[in-house]
Amino acid sequence: MRALTDNNEIATLLIHCPDHGGLIAIVTQFLSHHNGNIIDLDEHVDTEENIFFMRVEWQMKGFSLTRAEVKEIFEREIARPNDMTWSIHFSDRLPRMALFVSKMSHCLHDLLARYQSGEWNVDIPLIISNHELLAPVAERFEIPFHYFPISKDNKQATEAKQLALLKEQNVDFAVLERYMQILSADFIDQYPNRIINIHHSFLPAFPGARPYHNAHKRGVKLIGATSHYVTADLDAGPIIAQDVTHISHKDAVENLVRKGRDLEKIVLSRAVYHHLQRKTLIYNNKTIVFD
Amino acid sequence: MRALTDNNEIATLLIHCPDHGGLIAIVTQFLSHHNGNIIDLDEHVDTEENIFFMRVEWQMKGFSLTRAEVKEIFEREIARPNDMTWSIHFSDRLPRMALFVSKMSHCLHDLLARYQSGEWNVDIPLIISNHELLAPVAERFEIPFHYFPISKDNKQATEAKQLALLKEQNVDFAVLERYMQILSADFIDQYPNRIINIHHSFLPAFPGARPYHNAHKRGVKLIGATSHYVTADLDAGPIIAQDVTHISHKDAVENLVRKGRDLEKIVLSRAVYHHLQRKTLIYNNKTIVFD
Amino acid sequence: MRALTDNNEIATLLIHCPDHGGLIAIVTQFLSHHNGNIIDLDEHVDTEENIFFMRVEWQMKGFSLTRAEVKEIFEREIARPNDMTWSIHFSDRLPRMALFVSKMSHCLHDLLARYQSGEWNVDIPLIISNHELLAPVAERFEIPFHYFPISKDNKQATEAKQLALLKEQNVDFAVLERYMQILSADFIDQYPNRIINIHHSFLPAFPGARPYHNAHKRGVKLIGATSHYVTADLDAGPIIAQDVTHISHKDAVENLVRKGRDLEKIVLSRAVYHHLQRKTLIYNNKTIVFD
Amino acid sequence: MRALTDNNEIATLLIHCPDHGGLIAIVTQFLSHHNGNIIDLDEHVDTEENIFFMRVEWQMKGFSLTRAEVKEIFEREIARPNDMTWSIHFSDRLPRMALFVSKMSHCLHDLLARYQSGEWNVDIPLIISNHELLAPVAERFEIPFHYFPISKDNKQATEAKQLALLKEQNVDFAVLERYMQILSADFIDQYPNRIINIHHSFLPAFPGARPYHNAHKRGVKLIGATSHYVTADLDAGPIIAQDVTHISHKDAVENLVRKGRDLEKIVLSRAVYHHLQRKTLIYNNKTIVFD
Repeated sequence: MRALTDNNEIATLLIHCPDHGGLIAIVTQFLSHHNGNIIDLDEHVDTEENIFFMRVEWQMKGFSLTRAEVKEIFEREIARPNDMTWSIHFSDRLPRMALFVSKMSHCLHDLLARYQSGEWNVDIPLIISNHELLAPVAERFEIPFHYFPISKDNKQATEAKQLALLKEQNVDFAVLERYMQILSADFIDQYPNRIINIHHSFLPAFPGARPYHNAHKRGVKLIGATSHYVTADLDAGPIIAQDVTHISHKDAVENLVRKGRDLEKIVLSRAVYHHLQRKTLIYNNKTIVFD
Repeated sequence: MRALTDNNEIATLLIHCPDHGGLIAIVTQFLSHHNGNIIDLDEHVDTEENIFFMRVEWQMKGFSLTRAEVKEIFEREIARPNDMTWSIHFSDRLPRMALFVSKMSHCLHDLLARYQSGEWNVDIPLIISNHELLAPVAERFEIPFHYFPISKDNKQATEAKQLALLKEQNVDFAVLERYMQILSADFIDQYPNRIINIHHSFLPAFPGARPYHNAHKRGVKLIGATSHYVTADLDAGPIIAQDVTHISHKDAVENLVRKGRDLEKIVLSRAVYHHLQRKTLIYNNKTIVFD
Repeated sequence: MRALTDNNEIATLLIHCPDHGGLIAIVTQFLSHHNGNIIDLDEHVDTEENIFFMRVEWQMKGFSLTRAEVKEIFEREIARPNDMTWSIHFSDRLPRMALFVSKMSHCLHDLLARYQSGEWNVDIPLIISNHELLAPVAERFEIPFHYFPISKDNKQATEAKQLALLKEQNVDFAVLERYMQILSADFIDQYPNRIINIHHSFLPAFPGARPYHNAHKRGVKLIGATSHYVTADLDAGPIIAQDVTHISHKDAVENLVRKGRDLEKIVLSRAVYHHLQRKTLIYNNKTIVFD
Repeated sequence: MRALTDNNEIATLLIHCPDHGGLIAIVTQFLSHHNGNIIDLDEHVDTEENIFFMRVEWQMKGFSLTRAEVKEIFEREIARPNDMTWSIHFSDRLPRMALFVSKMSHCLHDLLARYQSGEWNVDIPLIISNHELLAPVAERFEIPFHYFPISKDNKQATEAKQLALLKEQNVDFAVLERYMQILSADFIDQYPNRIINIHHSFLPAFPGARPYHNAHKRGVKLIGATSHYVTADLDAGPIIAQDVTHISHKDAVENLVRKGRDLEKIVLSRAVYHHLQRKTLIYNNKTIVFD
C-alpha cells in the first residue's frame, strides 16, 4: 500500500538471551562495525530470570551488509555464541493483519479508520466473522469479508478453513476485535504470540464472560480493558496494554458497556500499534513493551 | 479539637428506602416547611433493586426544629411511612477515628499529617498496633499508642481488649492502615460499615497476601489500590475508592511496592474523607459515594 | 432514524435561575402533582454567583399534562415567578447535528462510527468541509458532503451559505472536528452554546495554532485535549470535557500528534454525548455537566 | 545515615554530547573493558538538536578502576574526544537536600515521612522558612529549622545568609515545598538545575499566583501540578513531572485546593525521587527523565 524507498529503510532487531556482561557492547559494535547508524535502542534485563532483552533500529542506508548477509553473519558471529533468540524486520515489508469480529463494531471501526487514514503501516487482507452483521462495515472499507458460522459440530472444520485462508493470504498476525469465540489450542499454536485479543476488564479480574455485569455486581469504582496475546489459557496470555476509567454508583451496566467501548478500542489499538512497531518481546508469559 | 459555632452548624441526613415517586419532594418539602436552607442534595435510585438513596445537608441556623425534634418528627412523619433507614449528623460533633497499624508507616504518616494540619475535622483518640515499631510515629504526633502483640492463642482475648478500648474511647470508626491482621467476624460485627481498610491491588484482582508479587508474576501493566469497608469476607467488602497507576516491564517487585505506597495512601485518604463527610451509603455490599 | 413509542418517552427539563430555598421542592412537587415519575434529578448551586441549576428527567407515560400544557403551565406557575431560564426536551425528537471538517479524519470516523452503529441517538443531515479530501469518508457513511472552499475574499459569503444550509436542514447544533477555520462572531451568534469544538491541548495552555509543537518545545510531560462550546474568543469558550495523557522525552512532535489523536476523538465524543443527553448547562462562560 | 558496603556500591554516569554513530558502543565497551557489570542503561537521541544523552549504572565490585582512575581515564579517553558533558555519582554518598517552606505543610510532611521511614536515601541537614509556623513540624522530625523573615529591604541580605548556610551544610540540591518567595537569579545561579519547585497547576497554564482561583474562574475540568527545576524565568524552568486530576462544576475553589494538595505532594515527590536517582538530564530547558 505504502512503499518506502531504500533510502529510508529501517532494520529492527529483536533479541533475548541469557544475560551476561557486555551484550549491549557486542551488538552495538557489530552494527557500528558494519556502518549501521543506530536510531533507536532499548534494552532490559530481567534480573530474576537473568534474561537480556534488546531492540535496536538502524538505517539500512549506508549499512555495509545486505539483508541476507546481516542475517547470516549475525547468526554466526553474535547470536549463536550468545545463545540468542532473535528476529529481524525490514520496514518496507508491510505486516499483514487479519481481523476477527462477531457483532460489535466499535473496535473494528476504530482499526479500519486507522488503516484507511494511513495512520498505520499495515495491510488488512481479510476480515473473518462468525456473524454476517458486520459485512457492510467491511464492504464500506473495501476489505474482503469471510463469514464462517460456527456451531459445536463444525468448529474444528471451520478453524481448519480459517487457517487455510490465513496461510493463503500470508497473514502475519491476527486481531480479535470482540470476537466471541474461543480459539482452539491447535489454532493458537499456529500463531504463537501473534494473535492479539481485547478483553473488557482489567485482568486478572473478571476473566471470561460478562465482565461488565460482574464488575457492576461487585461494585468496583473502576472498569478496565486489557489487550493480550492469546494463549491456550483463556484470558491469561501475556498482557500488552491495559487501562481503566473511573465509574460511580450512577453507572448502570449499560453505562459500563458504553464507557468500556472507548477503553476497549483505545487499549486494543495501543497493543496493535506496539506489535506493528515490533516493540514487543514475550518471555515467561509476560510482555516487554519498549514504549 | 475544632469547634463550630451554632451559626455555622450543618445537619446531614442520609436515607435509603424502597423507591416510589415523590420521595425527593417529600423530604425537601419537610425541610422547607421547617425553614431549613438546603445547601447540598444528592440522590440516587438503584433501578435494579428499586432502592432510593438520598443525602441532604441544610443549615441549622434558622431551622425551626431542635435536634431532638427533627429526629422525632422526621421519624414519625417521613421515615416510618416510607420505610426509611436513616441517620442524621450534626457538624459540631467531630467523628472519633481509631487507627490500626502494623509495620508500614506511609498511610499512617499521611493520615496523621492531614489530622495535624487541620485538613480533616476528626479526632484520633488512639492508635492500635500489633507491633511496637511505629510507636515513635504516634509519639511524634502525640497520639496514644496501644501495643497488642497477637498470636494464635491470644487473638480472641486481644480483640476483646481492643473492643473495650474502642468503646471506652467512644470511637465511631476505625481505619486499618496496612494492618496485617485479619479481624474476626465478631469484631467486625461491632462496627458494621465502620471499619475502612486499604488493600494494595485493584480488587477483585489479587486479594489476600502478596498482591504486588502476584501482579508482577502475572505481568500486568497497571497496579492499583482499593479502599473498602471491612466485612467478614476477606477483601470482599463494599468498595469506597480505587485507583491505579501504569507500570512497565522495568518495574521489579520492589518498584511496585514503592509506587503502590503512594496509591495506597491517596486512595485510603479519599475513602476516609468520603466517610468523614458522610458521603457514603452502603447497600447490597456496594457503596454509594456522593462525591 | 430511531423512533421511541409514546410509552418510553422521556422529558428533560433544564433550568437555571437565582437561588433561593425551596426550588427543588417547588419543581419536584410540580412534577409529582401532575403524576410525573422522576427518573433522574441533578441540581447544583453556584454559591458564589448564587445561581441554581437543575436537570430533571421524568416519564411522559402517566404524566397528566400534554407537551403543550407542560410548557405553558410550567412557564406560568413555576418559571416566571422564580425568574427561571429553562428549556424542555422530549426523547422522541432526535437532535440534528452538523459536522465541520477539514483534512483530518480521526474525529470524523469516530463520530460516524458511533452514529452508524446506533451508539448515539442523533441525526447527521450533513458534513461541511473547506477541503474535498474527506468526501469519500462522508460517502462511505452515506452522509451528504458539502464542499465550501474558503478564502479571505469569500469567507463572509461562504458563511452565509453555510448558515442557510444549516437552517434549511433544521440543524440543532454543530461539531467542529478539527475544522481549521475560525468562525466569525456573526456565525457563532446564530448557534450560541450550540457549536462544539475540539482543541488539541489542555486549555488554557497552548491555545491557537500548533499546540503539539508548542507543547514539545516547552517540554511538558502531559499532552491534552479540550472540548468546548465555541464563542467569539478563540479557544476560550465554556469547557465541556478535558483529558490528558502522559508523554516523555522520547516523544517527538509526530508522536504527540499520534497520541493526541486518540485523546481528541475520545474527549470530543464525551462532550458531544453530554450535549446529546442534555446534560450541559452554561453560565458565566462555564459548563455545568451533570455526568 | 545509611551506609552501603563497598560490595553493593553502584556507579552512575550521566552524559550528553553531540550525537554521532557509535557512542553507545564506545561507552559500553569502555566499561566492559574495565570489567564493569552494567546493570542499567538508558539512552536518548534528540534528533532535532542532534544531542546524545546517556545514563549508565554499573557495579563497582569487580570494576578494575578506582573512583579517581575512572574519572581521569573516562575524561581523557572518552569524554574529551567526544565533546561530552558528564558527571559520575557513587551510591555510598548520600545526597544532601535542603527544604524551603512557608506555611503549608502537606509537601513537607510527605517528604519528611519518606525520609524518616527510610524510603529515600537522602540526608536533610536543614529546613529554611520565611515563617515560623512549621517549626514544630521540623522539630517533630528532628531537622534543624532556620527562620529567615523576608521583606523587600532584607531580601538580598537574607539570600546571602541562606546561601552561606547551604554551602556550610554541603547541600547538593534544594526543594521548594510551596515556598512562597521568588528566588533571585543570583541565588538560582548558585544551584543551576539543582533547585526543584512544585507549582500548583499544569504548566504552562496558570503560572504565577493563585492558579486554583484562575482554574476555577476559567472553568477547567482538570487541575494539575508541575514540578520543575527553577530558573530565572518564573514557573518556566525544565519540567520534571506533571499530573492532573479530574474536577467538576461541583468543586469550589477550596475543593480544588484540597484535591490539589494530594497532586502537589505526589508530583513533587516523583520529581525529587528522579533527581535522587540521578535519572534526570537537562538540555535546552527540557528534562530527560530516564524513568
